[in-house]
Amino acid sequence: MKEISKLLDFRPDIKVIDATLRDGGLVNDFYFTDEFVKELYKANLRAGVDYMEFGYKADREMFDENKFGPCKFCDDDYIRSIVGNNETDLKIAVMADVGRCNYKQDIRERSESPIDLIRVATYLHTIPTAVDMIEDAKNKGYEVSCNIMAISNAQESDMKVALDILGKSPVDVFYIVDSFGALYPEQIARIAALYGEYAAKYGKKVGIHAHNNQQLAFANTIEAVGDGVDWLDATYSAMGRGAGNCAMELLLGFLKNPKYNVYPVIQFIDTYMSALKKDGVVWGYDLQYLMTGLLNQHPRTAIQFTKENRSDYAEFYKEIIAQD
Amino acid sequence: MKEISKLLDFRPDIKVIDATLRDGGLVNDFYFTDEFVKELYKANLRAGVDYMEFGYKADREMFDENKFGPCKFCDDDYIRSIVGNNETDLKIAVMADVGRCNYKQDIRERSESPIDLIRVATYLHTIPTAVDMIEDAKNKGYEVSCNIMAISNAQESDMKVALDILGKSPVDVFYIVDSFGALYPEQIARIAALYGEYAAKYGKKVGIHAHNNQQLAFANTIEAVGDGVDWLDATYSAMGRGAGNCAMELLLGFLKNPKYNVYPVIQFIDTYMSALKKDGVVWGYDLQYLMTGLLNQHPRTAIQFTKENRSDYAEFYKEIIAQD
Repeated sequence: MKEISKLLDFRPDIKVIDATLRDGGLVNDFYFTDEFVKELYKANLRAGVDYMEFGYKADREMFDENKFGPCKFCDDDYIRSIVGNNETDLKIAVMADVGRCNYKQDIRERSESPIDLIRVATYLHTIPTAVDMIEDAKNKGYEVSCNIMAISNAQESDMKVALDILGKSPVDVFYIVDSFGALYPEQIARIAALYGEYAAKYGKKVGIHAHNNQQLAFANTIEAVGDGVDWLDATYSAMGRGAGNCAMELLLGFLKNPKYNVYPVIQFIDTYMSALKKDGVVWGYDLQYLMTGLLNQHPRTAIQFTKENRSDYAEFYKEIIAQD
Repeated sequence: MKEISKLLDFRPDIKVIDATLRDGGLVNDFYFTDEFVKELYKANLRAGVDYMEFGYKADREMFDENKFGPCKFCDDDYIRSIVGNNETDLKIAVMADVGRCNYKQDIRERSESPIDLIRVATYLHTIPTAVDMIEDAKNKGYEVSCNIMAISNAQESDMKVALDILGKSPVDVFYIVDSFGALYPEQIARIAALYGEYAAKYGKKVGIHAHNNQQLAFANTIEAVGDGVDWLDATYSAMGRGAGNCAMELLLGFLKNPKYNVYPVIQFIDTYMSALKKDGVVWGYDLQYLMTGLLNQHPRTAIQFTKENRSDYAEFYKEIIAQD
C-alpha cells in the first residue's frame, strides 16, 4: 500500500508555492491593494511558505495597464515596494506565459531584480518558445520552472516528447498542471510517474498545480506528494480562476515539516480573504465547474456562467453537453 | 500503481446510497416538504441510485415529534405516502442509532414495511447493543448494515475486535465512517484493507460514509472504491452535518456504470437544493470544519460557530487549540 508522504514524517525536499496573487488575480484583474500584498507576504513568511508568486510578467503591448492591477505586470520596482530587498527565506516568483510576455525586454538580470524564480507557462504546442524563455531566464541567473498546461486532453506520446525536450533544457522543475480540473488521483499517480521518469533522467524536480473543479485540488496535490512530487502550488482560501486551486490552509495542515505553520494562513484569511469575498470577488467550487471538469473542457463557459450570475445549472449542463 | 476502479470500466457490485434526507436532515431538523422528498425519490430513480435513506428511526420517548420533520422518525406510513408500494429498483433505507432507537417496537416486520435496509449506527463501545439491533432487524427480514462511527480516533486493535464481533453477526455490510472528516486517502486505504480482511473472512461487504471537513469526502470515497469498498454514501449538493458529505453529483460523474446518470441530480439541485440554500439552510466546507477535521475533533464546536454566524476563524482556531 502506498504511504502518501509517510503521514507522520515529512520530506524536506517539499516546496510550497503561494500562487494567490497570480492565479487569484485572474478573478479580480489583479486589483490587490498594497496592504493586502504586504500582509500576504508577511503571512507567507510566518507560515514558512517557500515561494510567493506575485503575478504575471504580462506584455504591456498586449494588456492595457489601466485595466489591471500591478500584479499583472510585476515590475521589479513594484515588487521592491512590497518586499524591499527581501532578506528572508521566502523566495519571489513570477509567471511568464508563452506568447503573452515580452521576456527579452521585461525580465531583467536576476542580480538587478527581487525575483528569484521565473515560472514559464506553456501549452504543448509552444514548447520551443518555452525553451527559449527558459534559456533566456536561466542565462539571466534565475531559477526556472515550466508549467505544461492543459495536459488532461494531451496524448501521452506528445507529453513524452515535450518532457524530453524540456529535460534537455536548463529548466529546474517540470510542473503537472490540471488546467481543467479534470484529473482524478489515479491519473495524477500515472502522470507523476511519467514526469518523474524524465525528471530522474535529467536531474529535474516535479511540481503540481491543481484546480478544484471536482473538489480534488487538495486530494490530487497530496496524491502527488506520495508520488514523489516536491513542488506544490496552493492559494489562500483556494483563490484562483474558476473553481480555484489547492487551499493553502488544507495543504499546510497536511504537511508535517515543522517549518510550516497554518495559523498565519488562518489569520490572513480571517482578515483579508473574507473581505475580498464580502467585496464580491467570486471564485471556488460550484456545479458549473464540476461540469466542465467532468467533461474535460476549458472552464471558460463556466466562468462566463458565473460572471452572468446564472444559477440554472441544468440548462448550462445541456448547453455544454450539446457543444461537447 | 493502483488503478482506482479501472477508470474507464466499472465494478457492478458498487451500490450508491443517497443519504440526503438522513445526514442532510441533521442541518434542518428534517423539515423537508413532501414535494421535496417525492421529487428526490424520482430523481434517485432516474439517476440509478441503489438505495435512498429516508432518515432516522428515532425514539419518540427521546425526541419531541413537534420539533422535527417526519424523516426523523420514518414511520412506515410516512414512507408509503411518498413511495407507495415502491415497485422499483430503488431500495429504501433508514438509520437506527444505538441508544436513540426503540427498535424492538418501532421497526416492524419487513413484510409489512416499505423499508428494505436498516442501517445500524454505533460507536465502538456500544457494539453489543448494535449486534442486538442487527439480529432484531435481520430476524424481521431486513438487509442490515452497520456504521462504526468516529473511527479516526479509535485504536486499530479495538477496531479488529469490533469487526470480528460484527463478522459473526448476521450484518451484511460494514461501514467505514469518517465522522470527524479527519482521514486522508492514505488512511482510508489502510482502513479499507483492515475492513476488507474481516469482510472476506465473514462474507460481508464494505461501505464508506465520508465527511468533507478537509474537502476529501469525494476523494476518500473514490480512494475506497479503488480499495474494494462497494457501498458508497453520497448526498445531493453534499448536504450533511457540518462540512457535509460526498457529493452525489461528483460521485455519479465519476462512476462509469451506465445505469448511473448525473443529469437528474443536477436538475434536482437546480430546483430544490438551491432553494434550500436560499431559505437559509447552511452546510458545507468552511474553515471551522477544516480545523476540527485537522485536529481530529468532533465537529460540534464548528457547528456551534456556524450557528452563531461567526466568522472570526482565527479566534475559533485558538479556542479549539486551547481545548485540544
